[in-house]
Amino acid sequence: MISIVLVEPEGDMNIGMIARSMMNMDVENLVLVSPRTNHLSENARAFAVHAVPILEKASVVFSLDEALRGCDVSLAVTRRIGQWRQQDVFLPHWREVMSPYAGKKIALVFGREKSGLTNDEISRCDLVLTIPSSDVFPSLNLAQAVMTVLYEIYRTRWKSSHPSPYHTVKREEFQGMLAMIIETLETMGYFKTVPRERLEAYLRKLLYRMAPDETSAMIVKNLFRRIQGRLMALEKALERTDSSTPKDRP
Amino acid sequence: MISIVLVEPEGDMNIGMIARSMMNMDVENLVLVSPRTNHLSENARAFAVHAVPILEKASVVFSLDEALRGCDVSLAVTRRIGQWRQQDVFLPHWREVMSPYAGKKIALVFGREKSGLTNDEISRCDLVLTIPSSDVFPSLNLAQAVMTVLYEIYRTRWKSSHPSPYHTVKREEFQGMLAMIIETLETMGYFKTVPRERLEAYLRKLLYRMAPDETSAMIVKNLFRRIQGRLMALEKALERTDSSTPKDRP
Repeated sequence: MISIVLVEPEGDMNIGMIARSMMNMDVENLVLVSPRTNHLSENARAFAVHAVPILEKASVVFSLDEALRGCDVSLAVTRRIGQWRQQDVFLPHWREVMSPYAGKKIALVFGREKSGLTNDEISRCDLVLTIPSSDVFPSLNLAQAVMTVLYEIYRTRWKSSHPSPYHTVKREEFQGMLAMIIETLETMGYFKTVPRERLEAYLRKLLYRMAPDETSAMIVKNLFRRIQGRLMALEKALERTDSSTPKDRP
Repeated sequence: MISIVLVEPEGDMNIGMIARSMMNMDVENLVLVSPRTNHLSENARAFAVHAVPILEKASVVFSLDEALRGCDVSLAVTRRIGQWRQQDVFLPHWREVMSPYAGKKIALVFGREKSGLTNDEISRCDLVLTIPSSDVFPSLNLAQAVMTVLYEIYRTRWKSSHPSPYHTVKREEFQGMLAMIIETLETMGYFKTVPRERLEAYLRKLLYRMAPDETSAMIVKNLFRRIQGRLMALEKALERTDSSTPKDRP
């Protein structure tokens, strides 16, 4: 279970926006440490949109220690690099580094809009989590930082159920698609001038790179079937015209 | 080169926030299609912080076609799923799917805050890009959506130069660290009651799991060296006391 801990947040709009992104990313538990604003204001609710229940259920506590009570592991989200780099977690390595803590109670601790977390607050957390960013302007807006961390965690779960972007077709259907294309080209006499084997090999590679799924293989196959049908119909019509008015042939 | 294209954005605060996240993620090119607000307002500048130059350099155009002119590939960022899923790109698959277009001019097209992109606008883009999100509240705030997409792209580049979160120590230094721990335990007579080989094998596994880098291996080694030194000094002191006042021995 993930908790978002905000230390002394100042903007109600920010808190609302963060609640929204929490709901977007299936995280519910919001903890506010001595907030400097009303997290139930009209502004906060407007920015939360459908995530008002997250605001309403948020716990308000008076110290970071209180916020971290009961957590299995806490991460201070900051760009400040400690003396010993090994201790840091970079966000894109979340899966690799944090997998031993999957399913545990994890607190993600974010600092104030302007000044972030103090050194003392960072040292109260178990790990330091850093979002890699540009050297020219590394500091992210608070709500943007929360969104980014939540996305990385959501992404880890999402990718485990969607490991590949491709759902490629079975070989048989792939062959059927390619054969239909070749047959169509045959119908129109294409191989009178082009070597059939070479073109077929070339098209095969091109189509493999396209990585078609079942639907797209079927669409392509049917498309060529229609072209072939049309070609044959036209030729037949032409033959008829041919035999009746031979001189008009184009 | 990546461009962020915003279609009819309404909020100057949003545009400022987006400029900031672009600079955070090393993307410079902002294109506004018929903006409904002044992207150079005080509000926009305040939210952009150091990214005001991105606002100042932003191009303002009057149609999406104009915005996409000169792009090699354009992606409509939307959750709306087309009839044929194969055509969609899910954001976590960015690296796998978009690698053929690395270095090309890529336009990321985002719709209006409230109503997103129209079907016509989506169809003018080459691909549909979807950010996976919760079924209960899938729609992200505009600035949050831009941040998330920019992070995924930044992440792809970042990970190629930081493939592993671990910079593990050379075997020799790992052995040195383990040997120092064992030697220290030896000094204190630990192996009178505990089988040395079994403990050493156990500690080796534990330390491998910790995946120490050079610094942490050195720190651990030196820590035990100090413990050993202290143990030996105390024993020597005790011996001296022993021989002078034998009865006081604890």
